[in-house]
Amino acid sequence: MSGKEKAVVLLSGGLDSTTLTALARQEGFELYCLSFHYGQRHAGELEAAARIAKIYGAADHLVVDLDLKKIGGSALTDFNVGVPKASDVDQIGQTIPVTYVPARNTIFLSYALAWAEVLPAGHIFIGVNALDYSGYPDCRPEYIAAFEKMANLATKAAVEGKAVVKIRAPLSKLSKAQIIKKGIDLGVDYSLTHSCYDPTVEGLACGRCDSCLLRKKGFKEAGLEDPVEYENR
Amino acid sequence: MSGKEKAVVLLSGGLDSTTLTALARQEGFELYCLSFHYGQRHAGELEAAARIAKIYGAADHLVVDLDLKKIGGSALTDFNVGVPKASDVDQIGQTIPVTYVPARNTIFLSYALAWAEVLPAGHIFIGVNALDYSGYPDCRPEYIAAFEKMANLATKAAVEGKAVVKIRAPLSKLSKAQIIKKGIDLGVDYSLTHSCYDPTVEGLACGRCDSCLLRKKGFKEAGLEDPVEYENR
Repeated sequence: MSGKEKAVVLLSGGLDSTTLTALARQEGFELYCLSFHYGQRHAGELEAAARIAKIYGAADHLVVDLDLKKIGGSALTDFNVGVPKASDVDQIGQTIPVTYVPARNTIFLSYALAWAEVLPAGHIFIGVNALDYSGYPDCRPEYIAAFEKMANLATKAAVEGKAVVKIRAPLSKLSKAQIIKKGIDLGVDYSLTHSCYDPTVEGLACGRCDSCLLRKKGFKEAGLEDPVEYENR
Repeated sequence: MSGKEKAVVLLSGGLDSTTLTALARQEGFELYCLSFHYGQRHAGELEAAARIAKIYGAADHLVVDLDLKKIGGSALTDFNVGVPKASDVDQIGQTIPVTYVPARNTIFLSYALAWAEVLPAGHIFIGVNALDYSGYPDCRPEYIAAFEKMANLATKAAVEGKAVVKIRAPLSKLSKAQIIKKGIDLGVDYSLTHSCYDPTVEGLACGRCDSCLLRKKGFKEAGLEDPVEYENR
């Protein structure tokens, strides 16, 4: 036992969740990183997640298989639906895109809650962002607050009047540029992160999906160079 | 399109969820039954679930694989933890037993929510019971209400101000005997259901785990014969 408080950190290997991991580490938590393999096209992010969990000295890193394909309904898990390539980053978030995975964060947080109960860990970190984001409903602060309330009625510890679990979403109200600046302050090496939803050329980000566009906009606004390589830069 | 309203029904193949399926059918819903394979010892219940989905004319029956073993923490998914055999049914529910699967209903409901969003379905039926039960925190009405609230902040439909999803737990306040009587009224054939947590003899229920004891007590109180066969009856 290190004596440190434990935190479950939802780590996709992308820019936001890597910054989140650095933040949780800076707060002094013992990190239990949780990633999911859910048939996403961009499974390269799992390799990024493994690297990042190691760099930040995670006590454990679980990769849980999720059977989301059967449920379908998203371009990220259904290969019959194409990932849209936006022409204008400012249109992102106006409508909920086909890359939205139904109830994804609810499923992610449910597994995190299960692990938090077993460890036990009193904090769950999630890198949702409600400013420079794709308009996903399960990224909004009111959703996170409702999940936390539910979580504290769901667990053995809650029934026994013991520990509560806190859902921490410290990036929620930051712009992508602010997240990147915070990460740089914390020494994050963004060359290790993976954001692209739909990489087609080995080792390169497509540069045109929502996730790439938001990332590029963030680096531009932060006045920094994105160390990740794109197709046709 | 049948024109009927759709409902996702969490169907384990046990006594409660089978009664639930019959109830949802009686209410006129088009049924989308959802079962989980989560490394439980009692996988025989999945065969029961398939039979029951068919009998009640489900429009679809999904069996989703859940990767809960990695998370552990329960006698139902961790074969290193023994399933307790209670000596006294009245002690059940006094403390939360090792058969409790951390955050299980939260994970189950999260998948149901994902499927409900894709279908779309406005109702999710869950056979939780807070009277003759094992004291699991995620069976209580206040937990179900909190999940419903969260669910209505989690979905695309919620953000767009459209449909809401209702979490229906019609067995919540019934005793096991009342559930059985209701099922008999609806014509449920309980010989098709599977309740045992820990069957060791092929085709027979152990008769001594919490789930068997609660079932036997229910039939006894209902003044009915349990059609399921037990070891050493």
